[in-house]
Amino acid sequence: MNSRIKRVIDNMKKHNLSQMIVTSPSSVFYLSGALIDPGERLMAMYINVSGKVTFIINSLFKNSKGLGNNEIVTYDDSEEPIPILLKIINKESTLGIDKNWPAHFLIELMENSNMKFINSSPIIDEVRMIKDEEEIKVLRESSKINDKVMEELIKYIEESKTEKEMAKVIQEIFQKNGIEKLSFETICSYGKNGADPHHIPDDTKLKEGDSIVIDMGGVYNNYCSDMTRTFFYKEPCEEAKKIYDIVKRANEAGKNAVKPGVKLSDIDKITREVIEKEGYGEYFTHRTGHNIGIEDHEFPSVGGNSDIKAQVGMVFSIEPGIYIPEKYGVRIEDLVVVTETGCEVLNHVSRDMNIL
Amino acid sequence: MNSRIKRVIDNMKKHNLSQMIVTSPSSVFYLSGALIDPGERLMAMYINVSGKVTFIINSLFKNSKGLGNNEIVTYDDSEEPIPILLKIINKESTLGIDKNWPAHFLIELMENSNMKFINSSPIIDEVRMIKDEEEIKVLRESSKINDKVMEELIKYIEESKTEKEMAKVIQEIFQKNGIEKLSFETICSYGKNGADPHHIPDDTKLKEGDSIVIDMGGVYNNYCSDMTRTFFYKEPCEEAKKIYDIVKRANEAGKNAVKPGVKLSDIDKITREVIEKEGYGEYFTHRTGHNIGIEDHEFPSVGGNSDIKAQVGMVFSIEPGIYIPEKYGVRIEDLVVVTETGCEVLNHVSRDMNIL
Repeated sequence: MNSRIKRVIDNMKKHNLSQMIVTSPSSVFYLSGALIDPGERLMAMYINVSGKVTFIINSLFKNSKGLGNNEIVTYDDSEEPIPILLKIINKESTLGIDKNWPAHFLIELMENSNMKFINSSPIIDEVRMIKDEEEIKVLRESSKINDKVMEELIKYIEESKTEKEMAKVIQEIFQKNGIEKLSFETICSYGKNGADPHHIPDDTKLKEGDSIVIDMGGVYNNYCSDMTRTFFYKEPCEEAKKIYDIVKRANEAGKNAVKPGVKLSDIDKITREVIEKEGYGEYFTHRTGHNIGIEDHEFPSVGGNSDIKAQVGMVFSIEPGIYIPEKYGVRIEDLVVVTETGCEVLNHVSRDMNIL
Repeated sequence: MNSRIKRVIDNMKKHNLSQMIVTSPSSVFYLSGALIDPGERLMAMYINVSGKVTFIINSLFKNSKGLGNNEIVTYDDSEEPIPILLKIINKESTLGIDKNWPAHFLIELMENSNMKFINSSPIIDEVRMIKDEEEIKVLRESSKINDKVMEELIKYIEESKTEKEMAKVIQEIFQKNGIEKLSFETICSYGKNGADPHHIPDDTKLKEGDSIVIDMGGVYNNYCSDMTRTFFYKEPCEEAKKIYDIVKRANEAGKNAVKPGVKLSDIDKITREVIEKEGYGEYFTHRTGHNIGIEDHEFPSVGGNSDIKAQVGMVFSIEPGIYIPEKYGVRIEDLVVVTETGCEVLNHVSRDMNIL
């Protein structure tokens, strides 16, 4: 049994759970090395606390690498997979279910059994949230490439390019640097579009005084990067400069607060206080950050309702922002790895105000 | 109330369901025009059979276009959304749940109520599967661009390019044609890699005699295209030629079988029989096709266990294939729209054997 599955089984014992199915492709990859995107077809890695592991997969994927020596039960497109799954699980015990499993599978299980179900993702998430050395090495490299792309893209920012065109340029720079898949769709927001933290690049062109929010990341060796910088095109107004300075200080305060044992909600609080103290609290409309790894957003949040404490090996974002409707947005985001004494910041692109 | 929501409510009455939540971003877009990707955050469009519609969304998305005059209930990142949802639904009645809603939300609803839940996606899917004229127009245009890209990419196929590099070239041709998002990751498989219908492009280079399976599509105005062609690089062996001819005839037979009233499972059967008759039945390892629209794979399947009949306005793929392990694969896929008298084929790239 590999050490990751062993850690999961140890955690199942702690949570008093005897069986679970792991269905998220990223968790299946984490635990087995099998990189399968089954689309709408059922894929489950059944784990029993006894150590027995069984894959239930469509026969289309039966030759995937990483399935190892485990039992593999296949079905084809003319068969229904839930009856097959029901034969494998122990119907007398509670079954753990992955948080993102499509509800229709769970409803079908409910309709065909009297079992109890719980969300067992925390059991895997608690293992996945502590990255091992190999993972941290890859995440470090992933962010290094992200830094390089950010530094390179600056010279392509110009009035004639729309947000969409700029996002395309950014993708091309990623590709040039060997990154073919993005962690998420690049956010490139000019001026008042930046006031929507999740703005999708559109046909807006750059104007003098605009803030430019660029939030981006690439997938390197299956691990995500994620960083935001905010630039200005020509001289911004005084308020924008002031806001930039506040967000920069909030970003610093958040990173300075990171060390083992500190609650993630306290890191959020410390970051938020810098902004609140200046009277912009209501304009920081999201959590301070999120863990990251195989997925861009992993458990847990660095947010207001997280009781979880920072632990060595966690990797998460610190990304405060201030969003003034109809005017502009500023966000500065870095990834950090929790270390014995504090944290290692994975992004190195300057955070000094950059007026292009 | 818009006509799509009205059709859904009529269908709720037919299914005897008084309330449901629509949570898939594509269904929310279909019903409201709001294009929101909430990531892991809860987004639900609550529909009561009385006609009442309520959006439950994170406040990050409250200004999205398309939310209309409906009631909007927001929560922010420091609040739990399920208790808010529980206040809106009627806890005395069964609640319809979207098929792909993440299981953890459903488990939390189960833990905090005694409600019954059903998978209500068929109610929406039955509406979405019949495309209206406007949708068919967009799908026709989407496939027209896909045709153009397929015809253009042929001249870039050469021995020096790996599958990955070729997939990148294809993406660039899509971009040049105004398509920024692909329907799915392009499949480009050389030789024996083609024997895996879902092969992910890797560093394999082209060799003489290889089959080249290219399965691709782009998203135009939010609607997907999807087509497969199989070419050969230099002269293939006699068996490959024979197989190509069989798959081509199966593709034709499938399309010829399409007309209103014919069961989709019979279209699958008729397509499959061409291949079975030649003794290759066991090498056609997947369903004949799938409906398509806002999503690449929509309900229902054109497969062995579908009782649903073809109806005017359905758009689906006919994509038989033969996959010989360790040797090669051949698949030919077209999209068709069901018409009063048969079908309109949306793809026009030649299906004659093309030896490059």
